[in-house]
Amino acid sequence: MAEKQNYKMTLSYDGTRYFGWEHQPGNDMTIQGKLESVLSLMTGEQVDVIGAGRTDAGVHARAMVCNALLATDLSELEIQQYLNRYLPDDISVSEVKIAAERFHARYKAIGKTYRYSLWYAESGVVPVFERKYIWCLKEEPDVSAMREAAEHLQGEHDFRSFCGNPHMKKSTVRNVDTIRIETNGHAIRIYYHGSGFLQNQVRIMTGTLLEAGYHRITPEQIDDILEAKDRKMAGPTAPALGLCLMKVDY
Amino acid sequence: MAEKQNYKMTLSYDGTRYFGWEHQPGNDMTIQGKLESVLSLMTGEQVDVIGAGRTDAGVHARAMVCNALLATDLSELEIQQYLNRYLPDDISVSEVKIAAERFHARYKAIGKTYRYSLWYAESGVVPVFERKYIWCLKEEPDVSAMREAAEHLQGEHDFRSFCGNPHMKKSTVRNVDTIRIETNGHAIRIYYHGSGFLQNQVRIMTGTLLEAGYHRITPEQIDDILEAKDRKMAGPTAPALGLCLMKVDY
Repeated sequence: MAEKQNYKMTLSYDGTRYFGWEHQPGNDMTIQGKLESVLSLMTGEQVDVIGAGRTDAGVHARAMVCNALLATDLSELEIQQYLNRYLPDDISVSEVKIAAERFHARYKAIGKTYRYSLWYAESGVVPVFERKYIWCLKEEPDVSAMREAAEHLQGEHDFRSFCGNPHMKKSTVRNVDTIRIETNGHAIRIYYHGSGFLQNQVRIMTGTLLEAGYHRITPEQIDDILEAKDRKMAGPTAPALGLCLMKVDY
Repeated sequence: MAEKQNYKMTLSYDGTRYFGWEHQPGNDMTIQGKLESVLSLMTGEQVDVIGAGRTDAGVHARAMVCNALLATDLSELEIQQYLNRYLPDDISVSEVKIAAERFHARYKAIGKTYRYSLWYAESGVVPVFERKYIWCLKEEPDVSAMREAAEHLQGEHDFRSFCGNPHMKKSTVRNVDTIRIETNGHAIRIYYHGSGFLQNQVRIMTGTLLEAGYHRITPEQIDDILEAKDRKMAGPTAPALGLCLMKVDY
């Protein structure tokens, strides 16, 4: 039997059908669960997969990173082929690499990029081939107001008002070092980069930037929302379908 | 009541759920049928829609063009908004314009561009967000052999060997003026431009180019296949999901 080695795996998934990343007992529709069952099948023993973070139900990823200790004689390429053969077609593994013993997908992650995709067209036209990965708005947001609001949101703050978990006991201080808003035709894409994010934080930040985009709040009110440390002060949680984990930095 | 006017409409659709473009009695899952029922609802009378061509079941379009005579007081934008509001979310109208009385989406079309999307990766990785619009191959094709074969296929020929309708009584001579094969990472995209195409022609051409890509035929044998005027001599029909109507020229 081969000795256990630590493997780093990078994968993309269409989160539409899933209850998020995290394994849930008795629910086989999680990304981690799917991955663990194929790896367990491959090695003949139970495998635990450590993800860089947890994505919510319905959230997508283009480059989620995870690691697992595997005892196998298969090469990196053969592991990848095995995974891609037995995983459902909405989860795909783009890289498998032997990693240092100490590599830990969550603890060693130093940054993450998320992208939230929005769309608005007066004519009601939607991008049919992307419709499951973009949130189509009924009202036109003012992107320059959103950009102004984003400047107030950027930086290190206590993001308690932007935390979806009301029972969060640990620190809610996070550093969102950049928020970049790009437009391309009818699409509006918001890129968030930070060392880490709270539960639902990106979706609540997006919902709140849209409040500024709709002139329901001023960009300056972002400061008050941050200070309030109260979830009720921030905007609504944007739907999961528009969110995608783009990159994890190590 | 407004007088009837001729409208040109451009639309994109994800063909996955549909039995193709053409209206079929007793089957409400066709693109033309969906469009006709929303336009009939809008105008209060039966509307006939003329498409630039027929796409097969499962084939997609980024810019199908059609026209219809409509009696309505709505503006072009309002018609578009109405359509986009009542059409299913996998069909979307990108343009509605009043057209000349003589404009006929099929008779006036002088050229069409189709794209067939292929994918091959030794690692088995698939593009999860595009997986319904690209044909993932299990074997690696030799793209330069496909390009050579494409040169033999290009031009004006009797394409009877590439016609999916065995009862075709009319001329099967067509002019496929360009076939361009682009690669980008693991993706291989074949662009076909011509004045018009026979039933299944693009899919059979793709299946045949792949035969050359797999070295099961030589590029020169394309000439023999054309000459045979026999469907059995050409390659298999590539699956519908990889095909997309990109543009119609007028």
